[in-house]
Amino acid sequence: MPESFTPTERTRVVREPHRGAYDRETIYKILDEGIVCHVGFSTADQPFVIPTLYARVGDAIYFHGSAASRMLRGASTGIPVCITVTLTDGLVLARSVFNHSMNYRSVVALGKATLVEAPGEKVEALRAFTEKILPGRWEDARQPNEKELKATSILKLELTEVSAKIRSGPVQDDEEDYALPVWAGIVPLRLQADPPIRDERCDPAIPTPAYASNYKR
Amino acid sequence: MPESFTPTERTRVVREPHRGAYDRETIYKILDEGIVCHVGFSTADQPFVIPTLYARVGDAIYFHGSAASRMLRGASTGIPVCITVTLTDGLVLARSVFNHSMNYRSVVALGKATLVEAPGEKVEALRAFTEKILPGRWEDARQPNEKELKATSILKLELTEVSAKIRSGPVQDDEEDYALPVWAGIVPLRLQADPPIRDERCDPAIPTPAYASNYKR
Repeated sequence: MPESFTPTERTRVVREPHRGAYDRETIYKILDEGIVCHVGFSTADQPFVIPTLYARVGDAIYFHGSAASRMLRGASTGIPVCITVTLTDGLVLARSVFNHSMNYRSVVALGKATLVEAPGEKVEALRAFTEKILPGRWEDARQPNEKELKATSILKLELTEVSAKIRSGPVQDDEEDYALPVWAGIVPLRLQADPPIRDERCDPAIPTPAYASNYKR
Repeated sequence: MPESFTPTERTRVVREPHRGAYDRETIYKILDEGIVCHVGFSTADQPFVIPTLYARVGDAIYFHGSAASRMLRGASTGIPVCITVTLTDGLVLARSVFNHSMNYRSVVALGKATLVEAPGEKVEALRAFTEKILPGRWEDARQPNEKELKATSILKLELTEVSAKIRSGPVQDDEEDYALPVWAGIVPLRLQADPPIRDERCDPAIPTPAYASNYKR
């Protein structure tokens, strides 16, 4: 596979093109850091955007498809979707309101999502959901049985038409504004995990696993 | 205005209906806490989902519309959009993989977005973007001039067809799984601000404002 995705008319970053990125490494790093994606799909007259869990496996994204899967039944060639993952890295406080911004990393992936039917592939997707967020959890927890697998809708999007958009670094003000007596800078933001809360019915003799007590994204 | 939105066929929470909420207070609280929304819109054959800043003002959402605004020119009655805001509150570690989940609060708002043309309304929307995230910043920073206002595309969505979906509280396992020797509980997640980074060209004599040094969502 090439090291970069070829931007199309639909994925090329037009506004602020210097923020666009198309290389696989940058895009996959963002996809692997995010926990929730936003899936867009449309009926005849209305787009819908639904948050859901996902994981990248190789050059595809698997995602939970309860909402979209209703539309998929009978659509054997898949339905057009847009999957967007956004990480918010900071508030950018410029001297002018106009130059206020955010530091962020986002990925937009376009294509046709298909329903995953093969039980083996479903298991691998569920394992990826779990292991991506909590490495080690899959082996610790009770794995899905046949009935549960049947009750789970998983969709797949092959990554072919993808781009990232990234804003990072310092404030960018208009040159004449730098003289203004206004505080300027970045407020960094990140997702923070607090100490885990043991379930009331969980035996206190069971030690808290490291992936829960020391959770980091 | 009524205290609750009337769920429609398009906004009623069908899967896990007990997680649905339609009252204005719950929905507006989520909208006011979020920083980034995901806007969905469609061309003939492809949905798009773009992250952008937004603010609720009364019973409407204003959002930055650079991407969607291209489609809007000439569409005087607006274009169908879906605006989704998602707050991730925690990882839910059940004893079975199947019952793993997230605690989250999300809002989905449907309708037709229109381009804001009146300069006064644009200023009010920009003020709301700023003040929502950083109360006090609007007065501290240089406010937009006429040229900057013209260069800013702002879209508006009236809140009429809206619902929230919320998962909170403890793990829910199947009764027979509670006996398993598996750690179960919640890993709480929240957006954390780290100490602000003063811009290199910012005069050290200018004190760091409280909204930056003590940022809380």
